[in-house]
Amino acid sequence: MARTGARRLAASNLTAGSSHRGYRMDVASLRRTASKRVPALGKTAAFSKTWTFVAGDWHEGNVPIMGPRTHAAWLSSMVFDGARAFEGVTPDLDRHCGRVNRSAESLSLKPLLSVDEWMGLVDDGLKRFDRNAALYIRPMYWAETGPPGGVRHDADSICWCLTMYEAPMRPPVGYSITLSPYRRPTIECAPVDAKAGCLYPNNARAVIEAQARGFDNCLMRDMLGNVAELGTANVFMAKDGVVYTPEPNGTFLNGVTRQRVIALLREDGAEVVETTLTYADFESADEIFSTGNFSKVMPVSRIEQRTIAPGPFYQRTRELYWAFAHDTPARAAGRVSKGMHS
Amino acid sequence: MARTGARRLAASNLTAGSSHRGYRMDVASLRRTASKRVPALGKTAAFSKTWTFVAGDWHEGNVPIMGPRTHAAWLSSMVFDGARAFEGVTPDLDRHCGRVNRSAESLSLKPLLSVDEWMGLVDDGLKRFDRNAALYIRPMYWAETGPPGGVRHDADSICWCLTMYEAPMRPPVGYSITLSPYRRPTIECAPVDAKAGCLYPNNARAVIEAQARGFDNCLMRDMLGNVAELGTANVFMAKDGVVYTPEPNGTFLNGVTRQRVIALLREDGAEVVETTLTYADFESADEIFSTGNFSKVMPVSRIEQRTIAPGPFYQRTRELYWAFAHDTPARAAGRVSKGMHS
Repeated sequence: MARTGARRLAASNLTAGSSHRGYRMDVASLRRTASKRVPALGKTAAFSKTWTFVAGDWHEGNVPIMGPRTHAAWLSSMVFDGARAFEGVTPDLDRHCGRVNRSAESLSLKPLLSVDEWMGLVDDGLKRFDRNAALYIRPMYWAETGPPGGVRHDADSICWCLTMYEAPMRPPVGYSITLSPYRRPTIECAPVDAKAGCLYPNNARAVIEAQARGFDNCLMRDMLGNVAELGTANVFMAKDGVVYTPEPNGTFLNGVTRQRVIALLREDGAEVVETTLTYADFESADEIFSTGNFSKVMPVSRIEQRTIAPGPFYQRTRELYWAFAHDTPARAAGRVSKGMHS
Repeated sequence: MARTGARRLAASNLTAGSSHRGYRMDVASLRRTASKRVPALGKTAAFSKTWTFVAGDWHEGNVPIMGPRTHAAWLSSMVFDGARAFEGVTPDLDRHCGRVNRSAESLSLKPLLSVDEWMGLVDDGLKRFDRNAALYIRPMYWAETGPPGGVRHDADSICWCLTMYEAPMRPPVGYSITLSPYRRPTIECAPVDAKAGCLYPNNARAVIEAQARGFDNCLMRDMLGNVAELGTANVFMAKDGVVYTPEPNGTFLNGVTRQRVIALLREDGAEVVETTLTYADFESADEIFSTGNFSKVMPVSRIEQRTIAPGPFYQRTRELYWAFAHDTPARAAGRVSKGMHS
């Protein structure tokens, strides 16, 4: 890329305006608008402290990795995973690194790194941040090329990076939810067996639609009408002393944190039922809380107009997760099961 | 981005290998692998001649536009459109430019350019190529940022580019198709009202699966079991002197070239029926052909093990499209309707 040459060429062609075929551009205006809009082109957007291992080295900032010809930038041939570092720990990092490799295979991208290699790189990356910094840790694979005409990618054009950046843990403040008109796709019509970027615009519009109606988040149903997950996380509810969560039926990711929380609650003596749940079940729940990598365990404090106080199962789940993350035994005295399963 | 500094820092940390927490990396191997894999990082992949208007100027090659923090590179918040230049013409360019703006709105990205501005830029870009070069013309919008935790994007962080590159027109050679096990999503579970990158990994896996079974392409059904489209284009069939194509039911893009071809055939006197079609209808068709921007009108020469010769409707459709593209009247004597609608 001869950027200087390109700029000179562009200037000579554009400065006088273009009036071919009756289309007259306001070139000066286009330049002003465009120049502000692509921070990746050598400028730095207001991103938090970021280090990315790509092309054999660590780079700081939003280092360019994709161009307009890059298949993934155009046709979303990309998978990722997200793990967390906080308070000096990286819970379930091995599982997140393992899943990004499985996600790649689901999208016909042959993974290039072993789980140990990913984890070794994360370990190296951690040195670039404060010891207790809250970080988002994101390994990614994507396709660089595809045959002419697009759609499919070339499996052997796989690229990868590991990006890590500061992202504060959310305070465990309750949030409001509503029912989304949008649904989760089936395995027949979307790669729901992968953590793939292409799955997110659907959840994004669900969150945007819910927020436009004054809610923080929303429950999304599957194509059969049962609750699948929140717009941004897996979902749990409690009713009459039992914890419930949607049965993994292939319409949403069976999250690493979801599986961890179920195991922790069961070890702690709680009854956790994975089953078919309707929106009405959530509307009448005693508690609702979410699990996900980014915010771990968070309480829902309102569904539609009904306020719900964060309850004992939510409290205990968060406590168990933090104890697990720090590899410390949870206080046996705190067992939710005692007095809850009468 | 201080790349030199980053490289030095990385070298000092990585060269000796990393052995924290028991993970031992083969750093030299990682460097070798990684260095080959990200051509966007200042190197040029083997892409055809490419010019992109981004950040206020034209740039040659696969100029970097996205980093790992770019929302679209991670979560597919991106829309595009594709038009063609060939033989000195750019048919339906205005419609493709209009649709990219509507696609942006469907994904809650506020379009920044008018159709006239897009077309003026295309006109300017054409000067960078040979007069009769076959080009793919791709306007794109994408989101640069989103709130912490991801999923939704910031609507006001929209970026855009126009990329144009050499892509030969395909010779009109027939191709083989099969039935895909994958389906098109509904509007409830994917933004099928937009030409969005996130829709393509599903079609990509359909094409990959079909090619693994020895076919060139495949028919995809909707969730109701009816045929929607090919993995890469809209589909038409002819039977007993009538042309049929799937009724636009919101599960596939009602293509610009599809609509153009229907209008041209009807003006020419052919009967074109948009209706519900099963796979069995295609298996017993007299003709099957496809329409799409990239290859315009192409014949299917085999469905499963059954060979189909390119027929008169395919031939006439291609002839009508080329006449339209060059703004020349089609030979009235060539009307397919004569003698076909008995």
